[in-house]
Amino acid sequence: MDRRMASGEDDLIARYFRPLATDPGAFGLVDDAALLNHTGDDLVVTTDAIVEGVHFLPDDPPDTIARKALRVNLSDLAAKGAVPAGFVLTLALRDAKEQWLAPFARALGEDAAAFGCPVLGGDTVSTPGPLMISITAFGRVPPGRMVRRTGAKPGDRIAVTGTIGDAALGLRVLKGQAGEGLDTPSREFLIQRYRVPQPRNALAVAIREHASAAMDVSDGLAGDLAKLCAASGISAAINLADVPLSEQARALVTKGSSSIESIVSGGDDYEVVCTVPENRWDSFLAAARLANVQVTGIGRVETGPAAPRFLDTAGKPVTLKRLSYSHF
Amino acid sequence: MDRRMASGEDDLIARYFRPLATDPGAFGLVDDAALLNHTGDDLVVTTDAIVEGVHFLPDDPPDTIARKALRVNLSDLAAKGAVPAGFVLTLALRDAKEQWLAPFARALGEDAAAFGCPVLGGDTVSTPGPLMISITAFGRVPPGRMVRRTGAKPGDRIAVTGTIGDAALGLRVLKGQAGEGLDTPSREFLIQRYRVPQPRNALAVAIREHASAAMDVSDGLAGDLAKLCAASGISAAINLADVPLSEQARALVTKGSSSIESIVSGGDDYEVVCTVPENRWDSFLAAARLANVQVTGIGRVETGPAAPRFLDTAGKPVTLKRLSYSHF
Repeated sequence: MDRRMASGEDDLIARYFRPLATDPGAFGLVDDAALLNHTGDDLVVTTDAIVEGVHFLPDDPPDTIARKALRVNLSDLAAKGAVPAGFVLTLALRDAKEQWLAPFARALGEDAAAFGCPVLGGDTVSTPGPLMISITAFGRVPPGRMVRRTGAKPGDRIAVTGTIGDAALGLRVLKGQAGEGLDTPSREFLIQRYRVPQPRNALAVAIREHASAAMDVSDGLAGDLAKLCAASGISAAINLADVPLSEQARALVTKGSSSIESIVSGGDDYEVVCTVPENRWDSFLAAARLANVQVTGIGRVETGPAAPRFLDTAGKPVTLKRLSYSHF
Repeated sequence: MDRRMASGEDDLIARYFRPLATDPGAFGLVDDAALLNHTGDDLVVTTDAIVEGVHFLPDDPPDTIARKALRVNLSDLAAKGAVPAGFVLTLALRDAKEQWLAPFARALGEDAAAFGCPVLGGDTVSTPGPLMISITAFGRVPPGRMVRRTGAKPGDRIAVTGTIGDAALGLRVLKGQAGEGLDTPSREFLIQRYRVPQPRNALAVAIREHASAAMDVSDGLAGDLAKLCAASGISAAINLADVPLSEQARALVTKGSSSIESIVSGGDDYEVVCTVPENRWDSFLAAARLANVQVTGIGRVETGPAAPRFLDTAGKPVTLKRLSYSHF
């Protein structure tokens, strides 16, 4: 955390972030750089930023913002089969308020410890604009073993972790666009799914051992799967009825407040979609059970290069109005 | 570059950034993550962000913004004795304009090639606020050989690369606060020193071989040296008359438009300050000559823990009004 770091900034870093920098490679945040020791592993590098008003709401609590900033990156590491090794963050702040920074740093430290992903360094800058947190996270894999988006083969099973659509519905609840008639715990559940993703790092080794391709679902299952298909040069058939929904999301679909089509293009899921060869499927499911991560088969890889098809219960293709979220 | 990456953003990345992603670890920017192969080296990690209106001016040319964003990070790698290995960037944009993105990406690619620091990945997000570029850069050093801020010993020589103060003067010229009476080439020289730092990566191996401590000078020589002293638990005596100035900066000091005191606390130099044991000094100078990097001795390390002293030509301490720039 070296840049623009004189008195005020030094104090801020010393007070809120130095206590988190327990990894020897962080050098207590008093050097220009951090160190990732040579261990013989390859290093997987991912970077994701979240922006106030775009990826989180201005009145989201600081602790959930911290967790989301780190977890969207942890989710990428999980999908790549990597074990977290640490992260650096850039924090662009309008001001440095104790009441915001203290719970932000505390939650960041808690998640760093819980996921074994220590803070290694960062940069704190002032901005007249929206709050932004950019994190670059590192994970280790044995040489050559990073799970790519390529590698899916016709006949492979397609699986997703957890449940799909909760976060996008939670955002709609927060915006007052959905959730009428839902009880308070259900509304809170969906909002929490939006604010605090549950990255599937517990499944990383199982993905590395069994998946032929994987990625995290962040912009909508439909669009992300289309990217995986394109990268692997294959297509896919997804049974919409098999897409795993929480009971809260199911209730909104049943009431007609949402649709399965909008759920699979919603975004912010931070689940993993992966393809698993048939002969690895049972082992993968067994490993997922051991890891205590819900995994659901939702379809099959087909020969490409057509875009993936989404089928209704009668096996008829459903046309999706949009596949995912775009910034531009 | 996986997050929020649907049509518009996909196109943007494919068009402007994929051509730069020539390193195999970048996977053509079509995966969730990049890969830094295991080579037996330690990885040095540094992250620095630049914000419109804070680190660069809104009407700075896009090509110089790109170069500055990368070079402020390269400068950290140089100071740590590391050889560049690649970088990831987060680009927060209000919009995606061809006329801005094309020269930005072209210059970024040119610098990436010139410094041997390939783009490995990144994230592109929309923001309603100021443009921001956050880069995390990686460098390799043999195990255990990163040059720290600690390690300076009493009696060590203190050296800086290049010339000090040009960038801060260039910013003042851009703001119309200095430069009256300077000819156009001199004004342009100073402005260019502000907009496009010259990181001293050519000196990285010499620093690693000979320096006992080093850091890059980004917030002002005085303040940064104070940090190095604090980290090493030592003090220092700097002869202000020995601080290397360009002829353009010298002219402004001679005219009374600037002072050596403001020059050593100006910031944005992106030079390296390092300490070198006396018995390594001649070898260090020889290595610097071979690397074609100007190096100047400006003082000596003393026993600590007092703050470094800045001495005038009579050897009397000069009091500096401020040591460096702070965001908060």
